[in-house]
Amino acid sequence: MDVYKPPIRDMLFNMKAFGYTERVASLEAFQDYDIETALMMMQSTADILTKELLPLNKKGDEIGVSWDPETGDVKTPDGFREAYQTLFNNGMIGITGPVEYGGGGCPESLGVALGEMGTAVNKSFAMCPGLTRGLVDAIAHHATQEQKDFYLPKLVSGEWSGTMCLTEPQCGTDLGLITTKAVPDGDGYLISGTKIWITFGEHDMADNIIHFVLARLPDAPEGIKGISVFVVPKFIDGERNQVRCTGLEHKMGIHASPTCVMEFENAKGWLVGEENKGMRSMFTMMNAARLHVGIEGISLSDISYQTAVAFAKDRRQSRSLDASKSDPDAKADNILVHPDVRRMLLNVKASNEAMRSLAMWVAVEHDVSLNHPDEQTRQEADDLVALLTPVIKSYFTERGFMNISESMQVLGGAGYTTDWDIEQYMRDERIAMLYEGTNHIQALDLVGRKLPRKGGRLMQLFASRVTDMIRDNKEVEAMAEYITPLKELSKLTTGITMELATKGMEDPEIAGAVASNYLNLFALLALQYANCVVARYAIDNPGSESDTKLKTIRYFTTCILPEAQAYAAKIATGKANLFDFDVDEF
Amino acid sequence: MDVYKPPIRDMLFNMKAFGYTERVASLEAFQDYDIETALMMMQSTADILTKELLPLNKKGDEIGVSWDPETGDVKTPDGFREAYQTLFNNGMIGITGPVEYGGGGCPESLGVALGEMGTAVNKSFAMCPGLTRGLVDAIAHHATQEQKDFYLPKLVSGEWSGTMCLTEPQCGTDLGLITTKAVPDGDGYLISGTKIWITFGEHDMADNIIHFVLARLPDAPEGIKGISVFVVPKFIDGERNQVRCTGLEHKMGIHASPTCVMEFENAKGWLVGEENKGMRSMFTMMNAARLHVGIEGISLSDISYQTAVAFAKDRRQSRSLDASKSDPDAKADNILVHPDVRRMLLNVKASNEAMRSLAMWVAVEHDVSLNHPDEQTRQEADDLVALLTPVIKSYFTERGFMNISESMQVLGGAGYTTDWDIEQYMRDERIAMLYEGTNHIQALDLVGRKLPRKGGRLMQLFASRVTDMIRDNKEVEAMAEYITPLKELSKLTTGITMELATKGMEDPEIAGAVASNYLNLFALLALQYANCVVARYAIDNPGSESDTKLKTIRYFTTCILPEAQAYAAKIATGKANLFDFDVDEF
Repeated sequence: MDVYKPPIRDMLFNMKAFGYTERVASLEAFQDYDIETALMMMQSTADILTKELLPLNKKGDEIGVSWDPETGDVKTPDGFREAYQTLFNNGMIGITGPVEYGGGGCPESLGVALGEMGTAVNKSFAMCPGLTRGLVDAIAHHATQEQKDFYLPKLVSGEWSGTMCLTEPQCGTDLGLITTKAVPDGDGYLISGTKIWITFGEHDMADNIIHFVLARLPDAPEGIKGISVFVVPKFIDGERNQVRCTGLEHKMGIHASPTCVMEFENAKGWLVGEENKGMRSMFTMMNAARLHVGIEGISLSDISYQTAVAFAKDRRQSRSLDASKSDPDAKADNILVHPDVRRMLLNVKASNEAMRSLAMWVAVEHDVSLNHPDEQTRQEADDLVALLTPVIKSYFTERGFMNISESMQVLGGAGYTTDWDIEQYMRDERIAMLYEGTNHIQALDLVGRKLPRKGGRLMQLFASRVTDMIRDNKEVEAMAEYITPLKELSKLTTGITMELATKGMEDPEIAGAVASNYLNLFALLALQYANCVVARYAIDNPGSESDTKLKTIRYFTTCILPEAQAYAAKIATGKANLFDFDVDEF
Repeated sequence: MDVYKPPIRDMLFNMKAFGYTERVASLEAFQDYDIETALMMMQSTADILTKELLPLNKKGDEIGVSWDPETGDVKTPDGFREAYQTLFNNGMIGITGPVEYGGGGCPESLGVALGEMGTAVNKSFAMCPGLTRGLVDAIAHHATQEQKDFYLPKLVSGEWSGTMCLTEPQCGTDLGLITTKAVPDGDGYLISGTKIWITFGEHDMADNIIHFVLARLPDAPEGIKGISVFVVPKFIDGERNQVRCTGLEHKMGIHASPTCVMEFENAKGWLVGEENKGMRSMFTMMNAARLHVGIEGISLSDISYQTAVAFAKDRRQSRSLDASKSDPDAKADNILVHPDVRRMLLNVKASNEAMRSLAMWVAVEHDVSLNHPDEQTRQEADDLVALLTPVIKSYFTERGFMNISESMQVLGGAGYTTDWDIEQYMRDERIAMLYEGTNHIQALDLVGRKLPRKGGRLMQLFASRVTDMIRDNKEVEAMAEYITPLKELSKLTTGITMELATKGMEDPEIAGAVASNYLNLFALLALQYANCVVARYAIDNPGSESDTKLKTIRYFTTCILPEAQAYAAKIATGKANLFDFDVDEF
């Protein structure tokens, strides 16, 4: 059952609240993207996506992808290739790509909104252009001008698609263990090795596939300091390169997204960037990707929520606990009279909207970080993006998964059937906690790299934003109910952060042990900060939409924010008795 | 990948800790079931189950069940019928059934252990004898002697299987809306109507299927006071009755368990119990079932945990944060050196073992409630079972689901593939939060029925058990670390319960709004009580197993129990702004 109305009104509300016009559209790079244009683009994109991709979503799950062992070819479900062509013809794939290579050059603050819709209507499909986008970033940042001129126009338009070839059977998280080899050959290299879990490693939607491959040069140092990165096209001048899909993974979900085993046998490739500095390029690709993976949590949580609301508005079961709310003309009341149905729906709605707000904030900072004329302003924005990206990737995907489960619960047994699709959203979403760096890797990135970076400058900057918020709203009575909890949570988090800085330095295992809970605590603080930005905008711009928004933020503040207490209590246990257990006691 | 070793040692440990020998085996009904016999039965059952059912589990998921639209017949996956016969031939289906009808008459405290294994190795399969067991209980309690003599021998042995036919398209939770009709006809009734979500409503494993059907007599009062219950056999004297499967649901999981739409068209049936008193019989069936549905959470959480441990012990990735733990002979360390891997595994292990302990306690009380010579003792035991059954059903299934997700996380991307089966366990488990009364229905049962029952006597009894525990361990120094948090949580919960009793009386919507969080809070208290029983036994019986057990309980106490704080904070919000939202604001 296709229940999805792209949440354009909420997205627009956020854009306004986070100062899209003043902070983004005012930048020279985005002079063509005033807020009216952004709205029009959201609407037209929403129309095409819901028309072309939403109807293919369930079919894609049922049919899945198929692999031909003879040729190594992979066939996507019926309709996918045609839909891809439609998006390509409408210039939708390159919408965020660089203008100088034919892209739309649209700001990320619009990109996150479009990305959210794309994943909601068809996550499997959306992964293909999503990965290409990552490759475009990496090439734009690290390749030679010649390489850019050759690859970017076709990758930006979507005529060609891109992959990330990192994982090997013996290494996922720990890329230092990579063994794929690259041997110099003429103007390039010959690449040999096996890569696994390669999303859209082989498929029939684009005319060529450009693999971005981590490999080692013959005399490379051990570990991650000896990794270089290469572009390896599927076709070179129309000739097939020696790279081939040798199998597909069978997975819980994203059945329409091929997860390939890729075999490189003396495949021709070209170095991107410097020798042994491949991790740098890969991180460019991964950071952009992590923000969007986080947003996947919002996408599937929202479509699940909308499905649950549609069910709830229709379903009648039992009587209201408050007789005055009962419908005398029916044998049972609509289930929205039941407090727990509302509780479940509001848990999802309130957390989802808060996540959407935080994502918008980070997207705005992203745009500023790359395009603002002032270096200091760029740097501060970049610091905030760096700090918040792992938080978004991890918290949003975990919360998104729980939200989908809670949405399913609203439907009772019906939610478990394939009739209502939530079960597919749950299966499709679950991978987001695992790929692009597992959620704990995000937590280690936050605690081990982002917090200590530059003597704690990132966190200090974030804290100063919170302090400013508190100060700026001191006299605004209507803000007190949101600001007071922000202040308390900020105090709690600051204390814990200081303690963690000390303890974690003394014993890195403590930092590792508490990192995941710390990330969740910090996420709640960041979400409440974003909520306060939006609440203030709502108060300053009264109306029915603002009324609903304030109620929603009030629900988050009173009923979700208290989860911070459990995280704080768990963090306080440090590494507790984690290491008291011998291996054979597990 | 079949990774499962039935946790017999832990089950036996619990049986001893909860006084199986003194409290259960000493009862006349269980004189054949001393603890050595119980252990032997667990071992032989474990052998058969892992040999016969575990290898069919994944196949069953892949193949699923098929339905013939011509005949209405349902075919279970290859091997299921044969496995059922093997269990039948070994007398395993009737192991907990009443002795006077050919059952083994084994105590429930052994039954929960066997049930846990059965669901772990093959949940879909286990649902069939599970439902039959419920029907046996209902007939044994409510049917005439003649009916008992006719149905029970074949249901107990498993020659025939049973169903529960409650749900109709317009009613799940609210059974008062049932419209299926029963019209007197000769010595019985003719039943007509459509029932949905009928587990094993049609299948090929047993020779006959006895449907237990809720329906209305012609002049029955409206609502649940006009519901009667009937037995409707598929075959009567070898002739096909007018009941037929008209379709199967397509579901997220339990693919090998047919979920049937059943059409009754003047099907011959016989009344069980009194006219219009059908809900009473149905509740007998449901209460027994709810305990076992709760245990499904333990089953699939445990097999997921064991899978994650097997993976973790094999996998090497990255270096230990503590260099002294690094393995110099390898390029990476085993992932069990990483604190977060341990944290995830211990979250699952500690919560799972606590749940297993609590289930054992309730099972022992169940046995006492039905078989103790002293009425007062029976009554007290019955009160505890009544109070704790909804807690077990709801908390265990929700926690079980989260535990499976956490186990999956340990495997990284591999956990998402079908190679490791955890994704199946997650899909199979999710339904347990929905069926046998959604989890919120359990919470309403706890808050709205069990707490106020008999002037709060059930809760007072439970509280006195906690008080006794605190008093009895006052001088036991080694118990302090478990008892102090029990005491604190008990105080917190008591305060909240008192407040809820007042507020909930004034405004039932508040009771409804906080019920689910209250149930979770109460569950943590009950789990910690069970932990204390087991910890005391471990302290009194030192050894390596007791050492590990104490570490595990310590982990629960320090790292899981703090979750109570978030539940308490959420409960404090009452119905907050739940009802501020108009229907169109969702």
